[in-house]
Amino acid sequence: MSAAMPSFSPRSTQEHFIKAKEVLPGGVNSSTRLNRALGAPLFVSQSRGSRVTDIEGRELIDMSCGHGAALLGHGHPAIDEALQTAMRMGYTSVFETPYHEELARIVCEAIPCADRVRFCSAGSEATLHLIRACRAFTGRKKIIRIEGHFHGYHEMVYIGGHPPQEYVEQNRTRPYIESAGIPEEFADLVVPVPHNDPVALRAAIDRHGRETALVILEPVNWNWGGIRCDAEYLNVMRDWTEEAGIVLFFDEIQSSFKTRYLTAQAEYGVTPDVTTIGKSLGGGLPLSAFCGRAEIMDLYQPLGAVQHSGTFNAHLVPILAGLAFVRETRKPYFYRTLEKLTEHFQSGIKRIIAAHDLPMIVPVSGTRFTVIFGRKTPATRYEDCFCHEPQVMLRFIKGCFDRGVYLHDYGGGPFHHGFSIQHTQEDLDEVLEVMEATLKEMKQEGMIG
Amino acid sequence: MSAAMPSFSPRSTQEHFIKAKEVLPGGVNSSTRLNRALGAPLFVSQSRGSRVTDIEGRELIDMSCGHGAALLGHGHPAIDEALQTAMRMGYTSVFETPYHEELARIVCEAIPCADRVRFCSAGSEATLHLIRACRAFTGRKKIIRIEGHFHGYHEMVYIGGHPPQEYVEQNRTRPYIESAGIPEEFADLVVPVPHNDPVALRAAIDRHGRETALVILEPVNWNWGGIRCDAEYLNVMRDWTEEAGIVLFFDEIQSSFKTRYLTAQAEYGVTPDVTTIGKSLGGGLPLSAFCGRAEIMDLYQPLGAVQHSGTFNAHLVPILAGLAFVRETRKPYFYRTLEKLTEHFQSGIKRIIAAHDLPMIVPVSGTRFTVIFGRKTPATRYEDCFCHEPQVMLRFIKGCFDRGVYLHDYGGGPFHHGFSIQHTQEDLDEVLEVMEATLKEMKQEGMIG
Repeated sequence: MSAAMPSFSPRSTQEHFIKAKEVLPGGVNSSTRLNRALGAPLFVSQSRGSRVTDIEGRELIDMSCGHGAALLGHGHPAIDEALQTAMRMGYTSVFETPYHEELARIVCEAIPCADRVRFCSAGSEATLHLIRACRAFTGRKKIIRIEGHFHGYHEMVYIGGHPPQEYVEQNRTRPYIESAGIPEEFADLVVPVPHNDPVALRAAIDRHGRETALVILEPVNWNWGGIRCDAEYLNVMRDWTEEAGIVLFFDEIQSSFKTRYLTAQAEYGVTPDVTTIGKSLGGGLPLSAFCGRAEIMDLYQPLGAVQHSGTFNAHLVPILAGLAFVRETRKPYFYRTLEKLTEHFQSGIKRIIAAHDLPMIVPVSGTRFTVIFGRKTPATRYEDCFCHEPQVMLRFIKGCFDRGVYLHDYGGGPFHHGFSIQHTQEDLDEVLEVMEATLKEMKQEGMIG
Repeated sequence: MSAAMPSFSPRSTQEHFIKAKEVLPGGVNSSTRLNRALGAPLFVSQSRGSRVTDIEGRELIDMSCGHGAALLGHGHPAIDEALQTAMRMGYTSVFETPYHEELARIVCEAIPCADRVRFCSAGSEATLHLIRACRAFTGRKKIIRIEGHFHGYHEMVYIGGHPPQEYVEQNRTRPYIESAGIPEEFADLVVPVPHNDPVALRAAIDRHGRETALVILEPVNWNWGGIRCDAEYLNVMRDWTEEAGIVLFFDEIQSSFKTRYLTAQAEYGVTPDVTTIGKSLGGGLPLSAFCGRAEIMDLYQPLGAVQHSGTFNAHLVPILAGLAFVRETRKPYFYRTLEKLTEHFQSGIKRIIAAHDLPMIVPVSGTRFTVIFGRKTPATRYEDCFCHEPQVMLRFIKGCFDRGVYLHDYGGGPFHHGFSIQHTQEDLDEVLEVMEATLKEMKQEGMIG
């Protein structure tokens, strides 16, 4: 292996994909890592700054950025330094260090609802463990959740999140189970309600409130059209959950650290009881956290009777990377730079849509954006994105890829993309040029507009 | 920060613990990180080889070794090199690389039941995702599990594992829920059976077989006395599950890579349908995997209808560390050295127990061992460890700690301890001396014997 780069035996993506499928189901370690627009996953040999290089040597501007984890971009010097510190310390798991307390204290200062926090790796772990404490706190078991919102790949909440159009039209009140292998019994514990619909929320609380432990939501619904919650919706939700003794749970795995407010709860001025944060918290390394009011968090063992344990919780390597990440975000340049990039991208994409009179919208919030084809007016409800045809999205992703810009495919749906602090205005200009050329081509083909 | 060591503001463990409790529930990131014998967690400033140094500057021989994750010890050069490679590559998450396929191929060659594999971080994630595929494969939902075995901290299996003595005596057939906040509904899907009891297993299959998706077990029950499954028990279990169309699931998170057989399934010559492996797989970094027969593994999306996804699955940093780990284990010296250490420790502790006629046993298997106080004959059933009094264990842990050896406290129970490839015979001689001195003192105090 050379000092500069790993040496892979030369193979095309498709050749490698065939080999990968022999030993990994579907050739990937995550269902969504197959990019259907490319007919393969992106097999990467190096990532640096705003760019990734695939095993064929093709350099791409990365507009996935680790699904939002790589807010620092790839190969940031602050994270390199954290890894060096980890090597000097010996990267032990299972023990606490003063760095754990230091990062915990910063999180508690930064997140409005956080009296106490605990760290884990995956976002799915964070919601799993925090839901358990909400149930113990209330002595109740039902979960009210919002359609279109995403809270992880586990049996508590991978139910009722993304029902297909036919299902919504025929059978809305029954929770849709989103994976094979999840028993029906678990669906009885989930009450999905339509997004941004206070009447439906009120009805659900009236009907199920006394059995309901928590209302969980993404304040900005990155996992379906980037639809923001109406401020009034969050305000009544706060009042009603408090009256009904229900824990209000903001899932900010995606929305945390993406704007200068640090969280959507700070931006909206609505403080939940508990929250999960991530996905960029580890500076690209696996780190998530869950936090909230002391009387809920102190139910965890060894203080209370709620289990939360695990050998790899709060591993030293991501904890050190997390400290490096939050220190970087506290530098004055950080959000000033990101905001300039956001404005630049947002005005650029608006100009393109207007110039070509395209039937699409691109909601932007902080460093993330969504692409919704098939409508020109804002989406405020879950059904508003049914106009978005996956085939059109896949064509868009493929056109951008062929021109050097990587957008991830999440089944062609209206999910999120974004940039990092290492992206420059020139990078974004290149991205906008590529998007414009692709959209013009799609219009000429009659695929849109 | 100096180049050699992190600089923490000087604080005693107890002072730091008070600060940590302000922001972390119980001052820790994992319920079991409080070591009750010490009245605090171990706050570590550095770990190196076989040793950890706490923030008071006390150096200890580490006989926890990351609960079994640090089979390479702390700060191993091969893992340092993996981290350097990760830095050169840019440690991106969410993309696959040829290293993923390479590690997957090695796992499939090494693990008898593995046609395909997927990687994740925590062991709990591995069992969660694999149970889902077992349910999808069989179209059934119940889980038969064995008392005393541990399969992770989630709602599918954190039920019926470690019922207290009174519960076993009064109400054995009803699954014991092990954490507050787990709804009763989940317990209805779990059928716990006593360990090493083929009659009880047969009865459970006769009664629940047609609704049962899987039988899950630890072939070596590290999480309760280190009790090995009888070979005949595993053989009939294999036959009966196959006849009844039930998936046989070996949880080898702890038993994998601890002996030259690599897995207990290879050592016993009994091949399950699926298995989870870990905990040392990432060389001390967070890496686990689940694998099995192609017809089950290929149910995962994007091939099938079972979801398994996650931004941080198979993150490049632990994947590179995992490759470094398996390459190290394949060197001729590796298991030869571990076996010599095992023999040395095992004969040493036997000598001590015999010399002082102590009422205790220390089952050893590969690099891990358990301490059971209160009996002189082997433990073969779950109830056989009820003689083990937590207060005696905590006294033993404290005595060893005061003499420079770290043993972890898991609530004082008969859980596992162990050493690494970086431990020397001289380290183990020191450990044995410390254990002997502590046990002699405990005997003089009348606490044992």
